[in-house]
Amino acid sequence: MAALSDNLKIDSARLWDSISEMAKIGPGVAGGNNRQALTDEDGAGRELFRNWCEEAGCAVAVDQMGTMFAARPGTDPDALPVYVGSHLDTQPTGGKYDGVLGTLAALEIVRTLNDLGIRTRHPIVVTNWTNEEGTRFAPAMLASGVFAGVYEQEWAYQRKDAEGKRFGDELKRIGWRGDEKTGDRKLHAFFELHIEQGPILESEGKDIGVVTHGQGLSWTQITVKGQESHTGSTPMPMRRNAGLGMARILQLVDEIALRHAPHAVGAAGHIDVYPNSRNVIPGTAVFTVDFRSPKLSVIQDMERRLEDGGREICEAMGLEVEFEKVGGFDPVEFDADCVSAVRGAAKRLGYTYRDLISGAGHDACWISRVAPTAMVMCPCEGGLSHNEAENISQEWAAAGANVLFHAAVETAGIVS
Amino acid sequence: MAALSDNLKIDSARLWDSISEMAKIGPGVAGGNNRQALTDEDGAGRELFRNWCEEAGCAVAVDQMGTMFAARPGTDPDALPVYVGSHLDTQPTGGKYDGVLGTLAALEIVRTLNDLGIRTRHPIVVTNWTNEEGTRFAPAMLASGVFAGVYEQEWAYQRKDAEGKRFGDELKRIGWRGDEKTGDRKLHAFFELHIEQGPILESEGKDIGVVTHGQGLSWTQITVKGQESHTGSTPMPMRRNAGLGMARILQLVDEIALRHAPHAVGAAGHIDVYPNSRNVIPGTAVFTVDFRSPKLSVIQDMERRLEDGGREICEAMGLEVEFEKVGGFDPVEFDADCVSAVRGAAKRLGYTYRDLISGAGHDACWISRVAPTAMVMCPCEGGLSHNEAENISQEWAAAGANVLFHAAVETAGIVS
Repeated sequence: MAALSDNLKIDSARLWDSISEMAKIGPGVAGGNNRQALTDEDGAGRELFRNWCEEAGCAVAVDQMGTMFAARPGTDPDALPVYVGSHLDTQPTGGKYDGVLGTLAALEIVRTLNDLGIRTRHPIVVTNWTNEEGTRFAPAMLASGVFAGVYEQEWAYQRKDAEGKRFGDELKRIGWRGDEKTGDRKLHAFFELHIEQGPILESEGKDIGVVTHGQGLSWTQITVKGQESHTGSTPMPMRRNAGLGMARILQLVDEIALRHAPHAVGAAGHIDVYPNSRNVIPGTAVFTVDFRSPKLSVIQDMERRLEDGGREICEAMGLEVEFEKVGGFDPVEFDADCVSAVRGAAKRLGYTYRDLISGAGHDACWISRVAPTAMVMCPCEGGLSHNEAENISQEWAAAGANVLFHAAVETAGIVS
Repeated sequence: MAALSDNLKIDSARLWDSISEMAKIGPGVAGGNNRQALTDEDGAGRELFRNWCEEAGCAVAVDQMGTMFAARPGTDPDALPVYVGSHLDTQPTGGKYDGVLGTLAALEIVRTLNDLGIRTRHPIVVTNWTNEEGTRFAPAMLASGVFAGVYEQEWAYQRKDAEGKRFGDELKRIGWRGDEKTGDRKLHAFFELHIEQGPILESEGKDIGVVTHGQGLSWTQITVKGQESHTGSTPMPMRRNAGLGMARILQLVDEIALRHAPHAVGAAGHIDVYPNSRNVIPGTAVFTVDFRSPKLSVIQDMERRLEDGGREICEAMGLEVEFEKVGGFDPVEFDADCVSAVRGAAKRLGYTYRDLISGAGHDACWISRVAPTAMVMCPCEGGLSHNEAENISQEWAAAGANVLFHAAVETAGIVS
C-alpha cells in the first residue's frame, strides 16, 4: 500500500486544543483530572467526544460495555476497519494525557484526512475503550478484556466500586450501555498511541517509542513467618525475625531481575510486617513481588529462582515461607507488520526513535489477542504518570500523533 | 552479716496460691490478665495486696505516685530498709507472672520470716511500683522513674491514656494517690525478682538468672526517600527504590549487632513503606532500628556504624536518608554487692544459675540510680511474655523466690 508523503502532518495545535478542552471535564485538585470510569464526568467527556466525532463525519456506535466506535468509511465495502484509539477515563488523581492523547490523536487522524480530502480503502474507527484504568472498577482494561474474550461480560457487569455500585448499573445510569454485542467486530488492525509512563524516551532524548512487546507480569505474595519476640530479651541466635527474612528476599528479588537485565524488572511495592511495633521482632512479614519481562521464559525463571532462593533463605533462618501467585498475565508480542508500520513512519518522518517494551498494561495488550496490533509511545516528563503532575510537550504529542497517523493510514491504504 | 541456713525456704505453695488469687482480679480473655494501671481492676488488686501485707504485720504507706510500701520493721532504728518488690499492673493481654511474681515473692519473704520468727536488722519493705507496663499511660516504669528523679511528678500526672484520661486524675479516682512525697525514701538496697521474658534460662536448663546489667537501648527512626515509580515501566538502572534501600539497611543492622555478639542485639520491629501499592516502587520507607547492649560504648559504636553504613548504602542507590534518635536509655550496671548476694544465694541453695543481662526495662533499672540494686530472674516458657499464654512452673517460681529471700535477708542482716 502507498504511504502518505512525508510532509503530511496532523494539526498539532488542534490536537492540543482538544486535549485542553477535554481536561476541563472532571478537573483534578492539582491541575490534572478526575474523570473515573462511569462517573457523570466520564459521561460528559463521552458527550464531548461523540460531538467531535460526529462533527468529523463519523457514525458513532456503542457496544454493551460502553466502548465507543466512531467510523470514517473506507472505499472498499469488504475491507475490515483499522481501529485507532485508547481511553478517556482517568485515575482519581490522574494526568491530562494518559489515554486522552491516544484517543484524541485518533480523532485528529480523521480530522486531518478530512482536511486533506484523503480516502482510505479500509474504514478508520476511532475508539474509546471503557474503564481502562480500573481504579473505580477493578480490573484495569476491563472493556477491551471483554472485547478480546479475556473476561465474561456478565462478570464485568458485577464488578463493584468502593461504594458497592456495580459496573453494569453505573454504565446504564450514565446512559452509555449500547446495544452492540461486545467483541462482535472484526479488526484489520489496531494502533494505540500512549505516553510512555516511564523515563526512557525522555532520558535518551528520543521522540518516539516503537512498542514491540508488552511485558508479562507475575505477582507473588510472600508470607514469611517467624516468632514474635522482644527486641531486647531475645538473643540474636534465638531470633526468628520475619522482617530480616523479608529483607534478604527483597535483595534476592533485585539480583534475580538484574540477572536478566535489561529484559526484566523486579521489586516489591507492597510490604507489611506484624505486629509492626518498635520493640517486637516481626513474627510475620507479607509482601508482594512484582516481576515483569517481555519473555515468558524469563518470568518463569524468575518465579522459580524466587521460590527456590526464598525457601533457602528462610530455611537457614528457621522461618516458614509461603508463596502465592496473586496476579499476572503473559507477555505480549505485537504484530510484526503493525510494528514495522510504526517504525517505518517514525523513520520517514525524521523522528528519533527506539524500540520499547511497554512496562504497563494497555488496551492494546488485550486487543493483540484478536487483531494485529501495535503501539506508539511518546515521552512524558520524568516518566511521571498516574499523577496530576503528569506532563508532556505539544511537540511530543505531535510527534506521537504523526507517527500514529502515518502508520494507521498506511495500513488502511490510501486510495489515490 | 550472717546468711540464712541453706535449708530455709519460702512456702512455695502459699506463693503459688497467692499468684492464683491475684490472677482472679482482672482476668484476660485467654487465661492471662488485663489489670492495667489505675483501672478499677488495678484498685482491686491493690486492695487484696494491702490486706495480705497487713495480715503479715506490715504497715502500708502510699506515695503520691500510688506506689505501695509495706514495711516489716527491723531491729535497728537507724538502719535503712531493704526494699523488695516489682509491680502488679499488667499489659492489656498480659500474663499472670510478669511483675506479680516479684511482688508476691517479696510478700512471701515477710510471711516466711514471720513463720520462722526471724528478725532482721534492716527493715524489709515490700513494694508495688505503679504503672510499670506503660501501655495505658506511656512511658513504662513511670512511678519508679519519678521516684528515681528521671521524670517530674507533674509531668507524670499529665500522661494521658487513649481516652484522654490523665494519670493523676485516674490515680485519684481509684483512691490510691497517697500523701507521701515521691522519692523521699532512702534505700539500703533494692531487689527485684522477675520472669526472664526471654528464652535463655529455659533453653540452657538454668534455674536462676543473676542479673548483672540492664541493657541500654537506642531507637533510631530511619527515613529513606527515593522516587515513587511504576514497577513495570521504570528500568532497573533508573529506579530509586526506597524499599530496597531499607532491605539493605536491615541486613546491615543484623551484621552490626552480630559484630558485637553476644553483647548486643539489633532489629527493626516497625516498618512502613509508601505508598504501599503492589505496582508502585516505594518512594519512602520509614522504619525504626532497636539496638541494645549492656555497654554504652557498644551502643554508640552501633549507632555510628548504622548511620555511616546506611548513608553509604543510600548514596550508592541515589536515595536520601535521614536518621532520628527517637528513644533510648543508657545501660545499667547493677550493684556488685547486691549481685554477689544473688549469685551467692543461688549457689548456696544448689540452683543452677548463670549471669544474665536484662533485655527489657524494669523498675530496678531506674531504682539502681538511687540505691544499690540487683535482680533475680527465673525462666518462662518459650521466653513468651506480654502475652496471656505467658507461663512458668511452680518450681521456677519457688527457685526465684528462694534466691530473692536469701539475698534480701542476707542484705537486711539476721539478728541472731
